[in-house]
Amino acid sequence: MSEFEKLLAPKSVVIIGASRKEGSLGKMYLDAVLKFKYTGLIYLVNPKADEIEGIKCYPDIDLLPQTPDLAILLLPKDFVIAAVEQLARNNIKNIVVISAGFKEVGGEGIEREKQLLEIVKKNNLRMVGPNSMGLFNTIHDLSFNGTFSPTPPIPGHVGFVSQSGALGVAVLELSMDRGLGFSVFVSTGNKTDISDVEILQYLSDDDNTKVAMLYQESIDNPEKFREICTSFVQKKPLIVLKAGRTKSGLKAASSHTGALASDDIVADTILRQCGAIRCQTLDELLDTALAFENQPIPKGNKIAVVTNAGGPGILASDALEKSGLELAQLSENTIQQLKKFLPEEASFSNPVDMIASATHETYKNTCEILIADDNVDAILLIIVKPPVKTTPLQIIENLKLVIESNSKPIYATLMARATTEAGLGKFRELKIPVYNFPESAAVAIGNVVKYNSIKNKIKPIKLSAKFQSVNFENKSQAPVSEIMDLFKKYNLLVCEHIVTDNLNDALNFLGSAKNVVMKVANHEIIHKSDSGLVLLNINNEHLMKSKFPELLENIKSNLSSGISPNILIQKMIKGKIELVIGSRNDPQFGQVLMFGSGGTLVELIKDVAFRVLPIDHEEALELIKEIKGYKLLTGYRSISAVNLNNLADLLVKASQMLVENPQILEMDLNPLIWQEGDDYPTIVDFRMTVAN
Amino acid sequence: MSEFEKLLAPKSVVIIGASRKEGSLGKMYLDAVLKFKYTGLIYLVNPKADEIEGIKCYPDIDLLPQTPDLAILLLPKDFVIAAVEQLARNNIKNIVVISAGFKEVGGEGIEREKQLLEIVKKNNLRMVGPNSMGLFNTIHDLSFNGTFSPTPPIPGHVGFVSQSGALGVAVLELSMDRGLGFSVFVSTGNKTDISDVEILQYLSDDDNTKVAMLYQESIDNPEKFREICTSFVQKKPLIVLKAGRTKSGLKAASSHTGALASDDIVADTILRQCGAIRCQTLDELLDTALAFENQPIPKGNKIAVVTNAGGPGILASDALEKSGLELAQLSENTIQQLKKFLPEEASFSNPVDMIASATHETYKNTCEILIADDNVDAILLIIVKPPVKTTPLQIIENLKLVIESNSKPIYATLMARATTEAGLGKFRELKIPVYNFPESAAVAIGNVVKYNSIKNKIKPIKLSAKFQSVNFENKSQAPVSEIMDLFKKYNLLVCEHIVTDNLNDALNFLGSAKNVVMKVANHEIIHKSDSGLVLLNINNEHLMKSKFPELLENIKSNLSSGISPNILIQKMIKGKIELVIGSRNDPQFGQVLMFGSGGTLVELIKDVAFRVLPIDHEEALELIKEIKGYKLLTGYRSISAVNLNNLADLLVKASQMLVENPQILEMDLNPLIWQEGDDYPTIVDFRMTVAN
Repeated sequence: MSEFEKLLAPKSVVIIGASRKEGSLGKMYLDAVLKFKYTGLIYLVNPKADEIEGIKCYPDIDLLPQTPDLAILLLPKDFVIAAVEQLARNNIKNIVVISAGFKEVGGEGIEREKQLLEIVKKNNLRMVGPNSMGLFNTIHDLSFNGTFSPTPPIPGHVGFVSQSGALGVAVLELSMDRGLGFSVFVSTGNKTDISDVEILQYLSDDDNTKVAMLYQESIDNPEKFREICTSFVQKKPLIVLKAGRTKSGLKAASSHTGALASDDIVADTILRQCGAIRCQTLDELLDTALAFENQPIPKGNKIAVVTNAGGPGILASDALEKSGLELAQLSENTIQQLKKFLPEEASFSNPVDMIASATHETYKNTCEILIADDNVDAILLIIVKPPVKTTPLQIIENLKLVIESNSKPIYATLMARATTEAGLGKFRELKIPVYNFPESAAVAIGNVVKYNSIKNKIKPIKLSAKFQSVNFENKSQAPVSEIMDLFKKYNLLVCEHIVTDNLNDALNFLGSAKNVVMKVANHEIIHKSDSGLVLLNINNEHLMKSKFPELLENIKSNLSSGISPNILIQKMIKGKIELVIGSRNDPQFGQVLMFGSGGTLVELIKDVAFRVLPIDHEEALELIKEIKGYKLLTGYRSISAVNLNNLADLLVKASQMLVENPQILEMDLNPLIWQEGDDYPTIVDFRMTVAN
Repeated sequence: MSEFEKLLAPKSVVIIGASRKEGSLGKMYLDAVLKFKYTGLIYLVNPKADEIEGIKCYPDIDLLPQTPDLAILLLPKDFVIAAVEQLARNNIKNIVVISAGFKEVGGEGIEREKQLLEIVKKNNLRMVGPNSMGLFNTIHDLSFNGTFSPTPPIPGHVGFVSQSGALGVAVLELSMDRGLGFSVFVSTGNKTDISDVEILQYLSDDDNTKVAMLYQESIDNPEKFREICTSFVQKKPLIVLKAGRTKSGLKAASSHTGALASDDIVADTILRQCGAIRCQTLDELLDTALAFENQPIPKGNKIAVVTNAGGPGILASDALEKSGLELAQLSENTIQQLKKFLPEEASFSNPVDMIASATHETYKNTCEILIADDNVDAILLIIVKPPVKTTPLQIIENLKLVIESNSKPIYATLMARATTEAGLGKFRELKIPVYNFPESAAVAIGNVVKYNSIKNKIKPIKLSAKFQSVNFENKSQAPVSEIMDLFKKYNLLVCEHIVTDNLNDALNFLGSAKNVVMKVANHEIIHKSDSGLVLLNINNEHLMKSKFPELLENIKSNLSSGISPNILIQKMIKGKIELVIGSRNDPQFGQVLMFGSGGTLVELIKDVAFRVLPIDHEEALELIKEIKGYKLLTGYRSISAVNLNNLADLLVKASQMLVENPQILEMDLNPLIWQEGDDYPTIVDFRMTVAN
């Protein structure tokens, strides 16, 4: 039995801070534990009571008669650290700290949490929380409800990890009516020691868990998260509700990339790279979990809709298509068989509208025929409260044999109130997920089918690079020479150039380049164009001789005294394809790469896509395909196709540079111009913000 | 009393086809009518019975003792027409035909429906249906439930018009648990005589109706629809669920516009122009109706969230922002007052997280303070089943005085099961809409607040132009000369050109134009570029002399014998702004205009927006603002701003041309190039498909 299993399925538990006072945390918690009929041993520690609810209380941890597998701490915040030290001395290794008043309250709470973690690490303890709502498991031999949830959860196959305890309890509550069942629940609280990923690792091997469901407000340790998730999704689906999408933290962004890579886009990017299925709402999360929990995953995306009402059938068709599914094209044989018994007013194509007169027999016969059709991967039943003498309960009872003797998934939309006639209990018994609306069913099925392509596409990754936290406060523009050195080191091609304050050098360069751009090279000046410090089309000596000194003087007047002005001279280059590559070092996720259409258009249409780094060649090719400008890259009208492998190669090099240089906080390479006939695009303009 | 009122609130009703046979339509319908306790007079017509359920049956319509206000027909399809004729003879003017077997079954049903309509028109009858599920009104003095709904609907303030009867009944069923109440319901069936818009007109003046809710599968008579809706929304909100979004009917499109203007985009466009609030799902439709029905419309979009749990508060914040709302910035005074009684762990900014210890007193005190804050337009309460000794029921009871003594809207998210403790009845009694999820509440509130800007923006329109149906089967490309004549008539500027087969004319034109494009002028050839029949940059006599005869010969070889080849020669023009204007004559909605960024990019990024025509200058300006390329039009880097009024003027001219020439089935003006310094953009390439 692993230590982790002891935590989730303890043979013995000690509750420190259990109380007999009505309304107190200690009493509510104990009540919830006892209601669930735990078969292991429960010890209570409370110096002020001899027994609570018939269970003996020990006055002190030191006096416990054995070493329990798990300790639950409900003490006031100021007593937590001493108690944990005492637990460690007594060799009690697994702890859940319910107590709040740590990092989440700021101030001295941060310090208190730091101390707590030190003790945990020093003594090799494992701790959930602090500020956790507890944890439970339902279908293990040693089921244990260690949460405040007064309603014991339905045993089932969803492993649920929630960063918010209250949300977790609300979900358990709202899941009752849906019949959503849970194998394991952990409220991770402040994630001080044990975080989501460790619980995911456990769920990955837990036979009782068919799907993991995650509520997150932050993604901590993103590299570990990517490693664990990409390997988790090889075995089981992972569905995520990520909250906190507001546009915070971007106000200070000084680059396009910084401004475009919002926190939510980055979170979305990493979740996709992890193979997680991100749900947009809590409702969708529960709907999707219900589908994964109860039915196998459809082999393909062809759905047959069976309905006794036209309108809901149309709504379902719309929603299925919107969710990336298709309406199965029924075989001629199927249609002929349906025509034998459905009324002539029925619709024989998909959706199969059996019209209002359909009885439980009609549903059964129709389903049998559709299941036998090879073009059908799954069935969505729609039942509007029948006007004829049948009930949803009769319909589902009559489908029992059909359901049990086939392996194609069946889902139901039941547009009727939850009365006895509706037969919700029977639907659940037969493991048919029930939705109130055709659109909800379609979204859930769409998410389930997505898992097929995730399994195909996502590979488990092992990340060697470590995410390095850098100081975002103390930042500045990187000098041109340093940028150039870096580009050179990573074989990134910059357009032919010199940096000089000498007119003769400039004239020499013009001699070979024929047509050049001159701009300020001093990194102290940020808004080059706005200050008139960029001059295009310098294409003869006369022009150069007049403009060079002018520009130098102009630059000087924009600089603090003592700094020498310098001019960057680049060859003018032209090409029909302009690209942008950018990056933002996210304080939470590390280096994030942006790739897209460049030049003027990047600002207008924001045709960009993102990846959390590092990425490999294959991933880079995927990234390239995501932008709208991809059509241009593969050859379009007068524009020739470019070498996509070379472009991917460039993106991988940029990825490597960024990961190995975490001091790069933001970068814009914009535009890169791809000259007709060239092997690689050339970096024409660039900007880099670095940590000092 | 208007005839329409007689239809919806009849003093007397005759049911033709009432039956005593269990399970029959006639019995079910009568049962539903009687259950609702109608206070008017009911007559039954059935030659085979003396009485049903204690109500006397008359053997024949002719024998009725008085003229009822309304007749309900439940007869088999073959008896309907004769019955309607008999009703007309007896001066019974208002009819609801429940019977099916008309247009919806195709074949002879179409003919049957045509005959039915003729009789209705000839005798000045008004008819709902056929293929209707009936109608009801609930809070009129003469409430009448004339549907199959076995559960009498909750009386309320939503006027509901449904094109699908079964969906209508499902909605009534699902509305029970939400406490959504209806004033009027009409299942419009085949909309043969009375359609949605006439019912909307009625609802517009009905004091019992606060909001109209529409389920549509098709929008018939779109001009009338626009007129009625734009005037309806001046008085009351209109919320719509439009089904049938699948990508049908576009396969035959031969233009870009045709391919881009999908049925659903066009429906979306007309609904926006009408000022309707389009909901994406049935769930959203009901959620939104609930908010409109029960609470006033917030004055602005600043929402305060009050919660006893952090996670749901974050989900609400995300969703509110996504729905176009803002989290109210609480005043310093508000925060100070909250600090007086909330625990220090609480969050005093918005969302106000009172943490799990919040009681009904805490909710009340917090709400009072937030309502008094001028920065707050509405309040969203979030109640996670409290772990402390309070219940949602106590919370809402305790809020009674606060709710009744203020005019700011309050909405609730109740994350708890529907037990007695949840107090759902009390929430409804106090007219506080209750949602299970913070996201659902946010979407509903977002829709409600949208109505403020609709009232500001949408003006009632009067359309003089009549939509003309044209033949889409028999179509062809319009000849260049005809297109040119049409453009000239509407003052649309085409780039300088000639059409000729004579080299000397061509050379003369080149002499003045300096640089030209030559392309096939024969409309019989559609794919000009692909066939190599477009030559760019002909800029000297030598080139012209060699290319002109070559092109002429090339064209000839692509034409049937007997047709003379012709060349269109245009001056090469250049400009940094390229636009596209297009149109599609939609069989349902008439002329639809497309406007967007032109040239290569229209295909890559589809930066286009649409309007159902006609449009006026103001609407044209709005249209221009909708495209991403708008930034270019207002001046961007080296591109000067263009005259937007002139562009709007051009769009209005195009609109006029299209409305007055319904034979134009599809049109692409692509690109229009705006030359630096010009007043108007120039049409460079064009294509037009017309009905023959």
